[in-house]
Amino acid sequence: MTQADLTPLGDMTPEAFRRYGHQVVDWIANYLSDVGQYPVLAPVAPGEVRRQLPATPPARPESLEQALADFERVILPGVTHWNHPGFFAYFAITGSAPGILGEMLSAALNVNGMLWRTSPALTELEEVVLDWLRQMLGLPEGLMGIIMDTASVSSLCAIAAAREAVPGLRVREEGLAGRADVPRLRLYCSEQAHSSIEKDAITLGLGRAGVRKIPTDAEFRLDTEALAAAIAEDRRAGWQPFCVVATVGTTSTTSIDPVPAIASICRREGLWLHVDGAYGGMAAIIPERRDVLAGCDRADSIVVNPHKWLFTPIDCSAFYCRRPEVLKRAFSLVPEYLRTAEGEAESVRDLMDYGVQLGRRFRALKLWFVIRAFGQEGLAARLREHIRLGQQFAAWIDASPDFERLAPVPFSTVCFRAHPRDLGGTSEEVEAHLNRLNEALLEAVNATGEVFLSHTKLNGRYTLRLAVGNLRTTEAHVARAWEILQEKIAQLAVPAS
Amino acid sequence: MTQADLTPLGDMTPEAFRRYGHQVVDWIANYLSDVGQYPVLAPVAPGEVRRQLPATPPARPESLEQALADFERVILPGVTHWNHPGFFAYFAITGSAPGILGEMLSAALNVNGMLWRTSPALTELEEVVLDWLRQMLGLPEGLMGIIMDTASVSSLCAIAAAREAVPGLRVREEGLAGRADVPRLRLYCSEQAHSSIEKDAITLGLGRAGVRKIPTDAEFRLDTEALAAAIAEDRRAGWQPFCVVATVGTTSTTSIDPVPAIASICRREGLWLHVDGAYGGMAAIIPERRDVLAGCDRADSIVVNPHKWLFTPIDCSAFYCRRPEVLKRAFSLVPEYLRTAEGEAESVRDLMDYGVQLGRRFRALKLWFVIRAFGQEGLAARLREHIRLGQQFAAWIDASPDFERLAPVPFSTVCFRAHPRDLGGTSEEVEAHLNRLNEALLEAVNATGEVFLSHTKLNGRYTLRLAVGNLRTTEAHVARAWEILQEKIAQLAVPAS
Repeated sequence: MTQADLTPLGDMTPEAFRRYGHQVVDWIANYLSDVGQYPVLAPVAPGEVRRQLPATPPARPESLEQALADFERVILPGVTHWNHPGFFAYFAITGSAPGILGEMLSAALNVNGMLWRTSPALTELEEVVLDWLRQMLGLPEGLMGIIMDTASVSSLCAIAAAREAVPGLRVREEGLAGRADVPRLRLYCSEQAHSSIEKDAITLGLGRAGVRKIPTDAEFRLDTEALAAAIAEDRRAGWQPFCVVATVGTTSTTSIDPVPAIASICRREGLWLHVDGAYGGMAAIIPERRDVLAGCDRADSIVVNPHKWLFTPIDCSAFYCRRPEVLKRAFSLVPEYLRTAEGEAESVRDLMDYGVQLGRRFRALKLWFVIRAFGQEGLAARLREHIRLGQQFAAWIDASPDFERLAPVPFSTVCFRAHPRDLGGTSEEVEAHLNRLNEALLEAVNATGEVFLSHTKLNGRYTLRLAVGNLRTTEAHVARAWEILQEKIAQLAVPAS
Repeated sequence: MTQADLTPLGDMTPEAFRRYGHQVVDWIANYLSDVGQYPVLAPVAPGEVRRQLPATPPARPESLEQALADFERVILPGVTHWNHPGFFAYFAITGSAPGILGEMLSAALNVNGMLWRTSPALTELEEVVLDWLRQMLGLPEGLMGIIMDTASVSSLCAIAAAREAVPGLRVREEGLAGRADVPRLRLYCSEQAHSSIEKDAITLGLGRAGVRKIPTDAEFRLDTEALAAAIAEDRRAGWQPFCVVATVGTTSTTSIDPVPAIASICRREGLWLHVDGAYGGMAAIIPERRDVLAGCDRADSIVVNPHKWLFTPIDCSAFYCRRPEVLKRAFSLVPEYLRTAEGEAESVRDLMDYGVQLGRRFRALKLWFVIRAFGQEGLAARLREHIRLGQQFAAWIDASPDFERLAPVPFSTVCFRAHPRDLGGTSEEVEAHLNRLNEALLEAVNATGEVFLSHTKLNGRYTLRLAVGNLRTTEAHVARAWEILQEKIAQLAVPAS
């Protein structure tokens, strides 16, 4: 960048932006094409990136050429490539090319959609696109949709609304602390629910004690009899139950809680039902898998994440609420400097009224581009293929004498472990050995740089997870992961004495 | 987009991305060059954008050409142009070109920095760049910096940490509800503090009653004697004071609370001091204005927003905390599926441990590009110029017989109103008339599409606000705003009977 590229008291010139913009687009095109050549898990040691960066900021302007060169030299080797077709950890995701183009426009417009007035198109496109997604998922009409940044925040808003809905609590005005007239509040979710639910409860002043974790059945689904019993027991003990969080696609095993039965309990007990479908809920876009959201028509709120399994760049979490007036009561505060005539007249929706954050990016744009570029059928076909690949991998595991599957595979995520034949010792010794062996196996597999898997624990067993969710992942990549697992276990597996 | 651009079960081809990417970059370059030609405030009626969009999602892929054409035809007319040089509302901002380039790379990498492992470079660049910003602001060493999405969330985290720091509260484990052993908790801020503080208190279960708003002096700064008296009174009445939020640059008038005196009160009373410098704190980058953060070396936490007045695309809020171990205690929950060897060993920082959200975008990249492209001196020069323009406008107001200034101008935001000569009637009648007149003036000025101002109320007076913060705004634009104000008031002002 030369002196002429940056106007003395303005921004980069449009000509310079055009030049660097083309350069960055070319870089991205090459990157997206070659991403499978990078090590998927960044092969750097703690502090290695930091040590290559100056400890103090530049006093004078630096050239953008230098910044882009440093990006490639210093930053890129420290990046774990979520775009890599061998990324099978956590939930694999893709920020698809149409979504990237949407983010580019959104960054350029740089609007803040706190009020309708501060960008009417942001608010109205968000309403329309979230209604499209609602239809694609087969959810009922009358749900208000709003984009949050993450499922952590969507669920926070859900639980805050549930808290606001407790009759007579007046939590918005009076809070919870030091009040003799307020009972202890209890939220229920399964032992397999995401940690964000507990974190949200802590944030909202309910504490970890305010979350009662219900046991799951053999397939890691919330046990509804245990739920009903827990609610009854808590009522007797003076707790006030107020909310149940059911999960469609838990993080460890992607198990699906029995939402219809849970909805009936919530109806009977007068509890808010929130469904965390951040990952698994998206599968309802596949017509023959619409059943995964069975019962969700009776939920008070539900979250699904387009940035997880709908090819939308992070961040984009779709939050639906059947009782937007409660959500608004939980959060709306309109100081004079944010009052508008149209907001007062309630002829528009000011999105700042429905959540914690005042500022909001134009996120609907990328989701709009993604849905239009792929179409509902195209999106369904891709999810269907991911599920097929997951099932294929599960079949290989099932057919192997040296591996075993540790959970059902309702979607595209497989929980398994190596379990070599002929291990000696007591059952306890075997289990301890298997835990160490599988931890070592995961480390060896991830060290190849070809694939990246993550782990969990199921019934005390160290469990490997392979999750298919990237648009670039083909059967060849899954087969290669299986090959690497077999190679590495052959090197590691020595029967316990 | 043709069939060939979208691989049947993959993403857009790299070639297609390159082609559309160049097209989008060219559009952005033209837009940034021409943005002053658009009406700044979107001239659309409620529902006008929505009505032009299909009510149902496309079943089949649509061409990206069509999506980009619809973006221009349907979305753009509904956009309020925060990039417009005549945008003087709220706090004017700029997502500078280097920042846009950073966002492009960040969208392309699409990493989630929840753990160090899930992208070491995200975590380490964030640490380094936030330390650069800390140095630029003259804040002391030993503050941990982390990027949040918005100041609403940064302050939420600050207050959550303050709550966690209350001795014996055990809020993380036990929550606040239904506990006889917990006192009512009180937070203090001025009447001029941002509404997000109160919203955060509601979210955290403290309620509106948990926020005591302290009166301000004639210059809208928190009255420290009133603060000390309120704390004493509350203690006598059984409240437990736990936190004070001071503001550097309040939203209405940009007044600066007396942080040094507030810090002394907090020290004496054992209260957490959080400083909301989301807008005004950034001025400390100007060497001769470093005084705006005086006393902040004694704060427990502070927020400044690079997306407000540091030319970084929204969202990017810089949160600093002197007691990261308390912040971590307030939020950290590490389920098995997120455990890593390096995290357990505490040889790295896993950023998910320090806030509400698990998922996090690679936001440090854009801030790094901005700081490098402009340099500290370049950034300071631009802020200095904005302040000069604000002072210039204030001088015009002060010199006019038909306008009056309603607050001091410490930065680049001017609070004023039209106050035509020779108004008859009682003082109450005059004030009521002036309120109506200035509301009509604001509407008339904004309807021109040339400038966009916002309003507030100060001591019951309808107050216009002109905030300079856009990189494209020159003295000519501020002069034009002043011209329009004078034109419109000449048309509107009829002396009250």
